[in-house]
Amino acid sequence: MSSLFLRTLREDPADAEVPSHKLLVRAGYVRRVAPGVYSWLPLGLKVLRRIEAVVREEMDAMGAQEIQFPALLPREPYETTNRWTEYGPNLFRLQDRKGGDYLLGPTHEELFTLAVKGEYSSYKDFPVVLYQIQTKYRDEERPRAGILRGREFLMKDSYSFDLSDDGLAESYRRHRDTYVRIFDRLGLDYVIVAATSGAMGGSASEEFLAESPTGEDTFVRGPGGYAANVEAVTTPAPPAIPLDGLPAAQVHHTPDTPTIDTLVDFLNAAGERRFTAADTLKNVLVKTRAPGAKDWELLGVGVPGDREVDLKRLGASLEPAEVALLDEADFARNAFLVKGYIGPGALAANGVRYLVDPRIVTGTAWVTGADKADHHVVDLVCGRDFTPDGTIEAAEVRAGDPSPDGEGVLEAARGIEIGHIFQLGRKYADAFGLDALGPDSKPVRITMGSYGVGVSRLVAVIAEQSHDEHGLVWPRTVAPYDVHVVVAGKSAELLAGGEEIAAELERQGLDVLLDDRKASPGVKFADAELVGVPTIVVVGRGLADGKVELKDRASGERTEIARAGVAEHVAGIVRGA
Amino acid sequence: MSSLFLRTLREDPADAEVPSHKLLVRAGYVRRVAPGVYSWLPLGLKVLRRIEAVVREEMDAMGAQEIQFPALLPREPYETTNRWTEYGPNLFRLQDRKGGDYLLGPTHEELFTLAVKGEYSSYKDFPVVLYQIQTKYRDEERPRAGILRGREFLMKDSYSFDLSDDGLAESYRRHRDTYVRIFDRLGLDYVIVAATSGAMGGSASEEFLAESPTGEDTFVRGPGGYAANVEAVTTPAPPAIPLDGLPAAQVHHTPDTPTIDTLVDFLNAAGERRFTAADTLKNVLVKTRAPGAKDWELLGVGVPGDREVDLKRLGASLEPAEVALLDEADFARNAFLVKGYIGPGALAANGVRYLVDPRIVTGTAWVTGADKADHHVVDLVCGRDFTPDGTIEAAEVRAGDPSPDGEGVLEAARGIEIGHIFQLGRKYADAFGLDALGPDSKPVRITMGSYGVGVSRLVAVIAEQSHDEHGLVWPRTVAPYDVHVVVAGKSAELLAGGEEIAAELERQGLDVLLDDRKASPGVKFADAELVGVPTIVVVGRGLADGKVELKDRASGERTEIARAGVAEHVAGIVRGA
Repeated sequence: MSSLFLRTLREDPADAEVPSHKLLVRAGYVRRVAPGVYSWLPLGLKVLRRIEAVVREEMDAMGAQEIQFPALLPREPYETTNRWTEYGPNLFRLQDRKGGDYLLGPTHEELFTLAVKGEYSSYKDFPVVLYQIQTKYRDEERPRAGILRGREFLMKDSYSFDLSDDGLAESYRRHRDTYVRIFDRLGLDYVIVAATSGAMGGSASEEFLAESPTGEDTFVRGPGGYAANVEAVTTPAPPAIPLDGLPAAQVHHTPDTPTIDTLVDFLNAAGERRFTAADTLKNVLVKTRAPGAKDWELLGVGVPGDREVDLKRLGASLEPAEVALLDEADFARNAFLVKGYIGPGALAANGVRYLVDPRIVTGTAWVTGADKADHHVVDLVCGRDFTPDGTIEAAEVRAGDPSPDGEGVLEAARGIEIGHIFQLGRKYADAFGLDALGPDSKPVRITMGSYGVGVSRLVAVIAEQSHDEHGLVWPRTVAPYDVHVVVAGKSAELLAGGEEIAAELERQGLDVLLDDRKASPGVKFADAELVGVPTIVVVGRGLADGKVELKDRASGERTEIARAGVAEHVAGIVRGA
Repeated sequence: MSSLFLRTLREDPADAEVPSHKLLVRAGYVRRVAPGVYSWLPLGLKVLRRIEAVVREEMDAMGAQEIQFPALLPREPYETTNRWTEYGPNLFRLQDRKGGDYLLGPTHEELFTLAVKGEYSSYKDFPVVLYQIQTKYRDEERPRAGILRGREFLMKDSYSFDLSDDGLAESYRRHRDTYVRIFDRLGLDYVIVAATSGAMGGSASEEFLAESPTGEDTFVRGPGGYAANVEAVTTPAPPAIPLDGLPAAQVHHTPDTPTIDTLVDFLNAAGERRFTAADTLKNVLVKTRAPGAKDWELLGVGVPGDREVDLKRLGASLEPAEVALLDEADFARNAFLVKGYIGPGALAANGVRYLVDPRIVTGTAWVTGADKADHHVVDLVCGRDFTPDGTIEAAEVRAGDPSPDGEGVLEAARGIEIGHIFQLGRKYADAFGLDALGPDSKPVRITMGSYGVGVSRLVAVIAEQSHDEHGLVWPRTVAPYDVHVVVAGKSAELLAGGEEIAAELERQGLDVLLDDRKASPGVKFADAELVGVPTIVVVGRGLADGKVELKDRASGERTEIARAGVAEHVAGIVRGA
């Protein structure tokens, strides 16, 4: 440590909010260069490489083949799939000296598809799984939490290429098993949740989320094993109700009731029927724009009045289209939209697309806006008085909602995405015409899966799950060193003793960090806690009596052991003996 | 090989001129994505990683510490050193979603300097050597020869930080030794030549050039050990000549003599004195522009008339300024420049800077232009009749020129730059104020060295030096596999035999490529030659008699050996036993 390029900091960095960010900066693992762009100092790079090695070993073990694409990519393949446009401002775009358009790869579906098309042609060539561990770039609107959500980051991405849907399902299953092994080896506490596939297109999709209170992703789970990203929760639709005999819809004058609360209060004060917010139908107007399109289109979203529209769920449901709230100018342009009193009637009459929550089925009767200020309609029946254009998952999901698997109710938790697997299907194979010549000489369209692990993010995720108030607490699999030898004193005897012990430990094949600095024992102990190597050997006054102290960083347990057998003893601990 | 992501090609790629480019594409090591931007397929990535490992081991062995900077860098540090501008069109520049200026790092002096400034402050912290192995970007005007000169490439760059010039000299020497070890281990045939430091600034500088007829760099060497990049050759100045008694300059009418040849012929035809082109002084006019400047300035360059101006040497001498030839408009604007008859007189009279070849010393007498059409001046004496503003290395260097070390004459050869070491000095420390607090509490300005190895380029350079008409011939240190087992036949017995032998070889710790494809022996042998694994085991008809054939890829030598001991035998060969 007297020559290691490491300086620990006593203060948290001003821009850090989450523990991993504070500790990785304070302990000298990473340094900020620009928003979401970090340098790796020696300790950080060692942890990153150890995680990368685990990911590589497991990918190789499943028979995936490693290749590497450039990060600097020409526009054309991304133009073919429309992602040059769809990615919007998240894509770093640039031009070369000749004015050619390039991008920094955010994900490499196009290149993998073209590579397989370039090399393979026969059904005998398939299936194949290719992967790379490579720097990726996304111009995040809000890079945050250090390396947790960066704009330059290291990712493992792999792709499977199969001849059939069954083959894809098998490749998907094998990736899922591999991911379980990777995250288990890394000692992570994680859940696998059903996910939406986002801008990628495709069908089956799951996320691996590391449980963390600072996570950006909210997920829900039920007692029967159901778990899903909130964006992916599907709302069970109740059975339809026969229309016969339902009361007719009636418009009521409901002065000063622009909100659900004021409306419910007014109705309950006025009549014998008892209404709750769940009896009302709230119509939220937004505008959407298809990728590359110039114009926005209006969209009405109907949800039970006791729930808010969750904009992340709404956004995920509408991807890859953009979605935005209406501004005053939009209302001014569309006079039929009577704020606070919008009903299905005016939307239908004016050709506005109208999508509703799956709970709004045929035969359900609602209190909703009558498209006229201070007026609502009661007993407006779905399938009789209005017909939505379809359903949409946009209503908020709440802890306590029934679990979609029919078992118990949902609880909510937070997590950080560490892996994502999904069945892309034929989207990219269609875009590039990726076929294999079948045994009957007829072309077979290839079907693909896409699988990602956030390698650099994992450094932060592990730190997030494994730290205490004194610093980092690395699992042995990824720790920057196996053992940290602290020379607790400045005498030449202690220093020589520490150096000898470090040399013995290295002869055992261990990776040793020796604190040989001319600093006080207090400073050294604090740094050892901060840096977080799992086993600490303290070489102090006891050395004269043939004793050294072992400290387990995670439990804090201290043991005095004989100097003589220290190397073998520590090697045993490191190897789990 | 039946499942390896590898398809060899029978034809050379249309855009390939040099052997390494042709073979690396044909043998399935790399694929082109855009000009100067390549993907690494499995075999290529394996060779790249093995070279990277050698570089890393030797850098670690010299005590350098590995870190990693981002490739995406903010403009500010490069603005501080003016390199944002100086790099010109070679720099990939881009903006983020907020309009912030970024670049893709072509070299990281700024970041290394800032990193050390950020962590270190005391003289006790120094010296330190830091390195990274990282993807770099340069928007080359003419990317060429596949990965030999790419626009995205992998480089090891390191920097030394010392308190004194002596310390820098020692860090430089240690890097030089390390580079010798790296390139020796990689089996390269290379020379170390004196170099100019280019746009980097600084003093002592050497290049490691791999000898290759397809190299872009010309270098010269003398029998006494002198070797230099042509740009770095210094011309020994002859001793000055006393001015006393030299004949006076005389202007002669020399009709129709705009070239050196016509002038020499005219003079020799006219008088009793015998002239050669070496007696004439040729004045070449160019224009230069400082980085970021708007206006060009005229510059006169005087060289002996028997030599051309070498534009690469001239450019290197004038860096970081740009240099360009004059166009007709420039001559029109400067009527005092009489084409073909330009002399030092008009340049001095019109304030044009005038730099001459070092051979043009005080007391030398020249035939040169008289600044008047069809007129030359004879016996124009340097230091008497004209006084240059300085000297410049711009004249061509020729095989047969005296070696600057005084021993024998120079010969010319071509090479590919594989490493560059140079003493940067205090340029970057000055720009960022990188000081250490000395033992007397006074600041000491740090002095730096900069050292680079072109890691991805080395894949091509080794291929360039190690191939034959049939394909690649990898040295064992970097070969993608240790041994290539060819099953020469389609019978189940041969396949089983090949698989068993491959398994035995793997148990010996060897990396084995097994050709288990259903292809003809001819196709398999051709692919084995093309792919270039050093040792080939042919499992063919002899297997029934307990024999297999070993083939050494480099020598072509074939040996029949007993099946029984094949694994031990091959392991012995691979380990050099």
